[in-house]
Amino acid sequence: MDLVTIVIGVALVEYVFFAMMVGKARVQSGIKAPATTGNDVFERHYRVQMNTLELLVAFIPGMVMFARAYGSEIAAGLGIVFIIGRFIYYKSYVADPDKRSMGFGLSFLPTVILVIGGIIGAVMNMVNSPM
Amino acid sequence: MDLVTIVIGVALVEYVFFAMMVGKARVQSGIKAPATTGNDVFERHYRVQMNTLELLVAFIPGMVMFARAYGSEIAAGLGIVFIIGRFIYYKSYVADPDKRSMGFGLSFLPTVILVIGGIIGAVMNMVNSPM
Amino acid sequence: MDLVTIVIGVALVEYVFFAMMVGKARVQSGIKAPATTGNDVFERHYRVQMNTLELLVAFIPGMVMFARAYGSEIAAGLGIVFIIGRFIYYKSYVADPDKRSMGFGLSFLPTVILVIGGIIGAVMNMVNSPM
Repeated sequence: MDLVTIVIGVALVEYVFFAMMVGKARVQSGIKAPATTGNDVFERHYRVQMNTLELLVAFIPGMVMFARAYGSEIAAGLGIVFIIGRFIYYKSYVADPDKRSMGFGLSFLPTVILVIGGIIGAVMNMVNSPM
Repeated sequence: MDLVTIVIGVALVEYVFFAMMVGKARVQSGIKAPATTGNDVFERHYRVQMNTLELLVAFIPGMVMFARAYGSEIAAGLGIVFIIGRFIYYKSYVADPDKRSMGFGLSFLPTVILVIGGIIGAVMNMVNSPM
Repeated sequence: MDLVTIVIGVALVEYVFFAMMVGKARVQSGIKAPATTGNDVFERHYRVQMNTLELLVAFIPGMVMFARAYGSEIAAGLGIVFIIGRFIYYKSYVADPDKRSMGFGLSFLPTVILVIGGIIGAVMNMVNSPM
């Protein structure tokens, strides 16, 4: 599971980077806590972090579930697509929120494949295991 | 742990479904990113997804912790109550946010039982294991 | 992993406590769902919960990754700093959002150490393991 651990870890480092960009945008925009609205640049950064959080909660268990069923290599490959997709999402969303679709798809799709594949793998394993 | 994997996976599929309903509500309401306010129907769907995210971050580790201590069957049973509770929450929140209590309780309570039970199980295991 | 399970569990109980304080603040402030803005006291509690959620999604896998590489004891120690840091964050944020830095740092830093340390540990393990 070392490969899976590394890919999950890198996805989390990327997420922490997004969170730090939110902190930077908060200082630059002058939006004072607890507010999270009132400046478009801040809101774009904030939404990138939140959307990444929304996906990570499914991506991380999905990686573990999928790797158990089909091995670490394919899981890691899907995870790398996720990480690249998130970076495209970040760049395009901050530039223009209307351009966020491709980056979103490149991270949403691997997440769905990991979760659905993980479920199928566990069902197969249960069916095939002796009583 | 196959049973636990399947139940966690189904809870994640339900969550992805809620996220897709948010996307649909965004298009129908005309609320443009990065905004997350300004239309009541969109906000209800968005809050359902967010509240599910808020619970999943405790529910998923809780399932694993609890299953380790008391076996997969009881954990899976509590997980199924969570999944049903979330669906009731979704249906009632979108219809009328004031009616969300029962669905919330049916997913909040299993989550608390899983986490507290998981802690007690791990403490018991530590106390009983030889030095 | 019992020690790691207990520390993650206590961090989740603390998070559930923050979530319950949000519920209490919602009732007291009269902010009706789906709204999450409009009252400063409610928004402070809400932001404490959200920020804790934002960190937990990295903290929990970080604890497991780090413990695998360097043992449960150091991971648990960092986890306890996280839990204390979060409580200071809660207390200071609710009192005055401008005073939230120290509590944030005390929970953000352990999270980053857990994730980065976990990645390094897994890379080392891969490099050193026979082909």
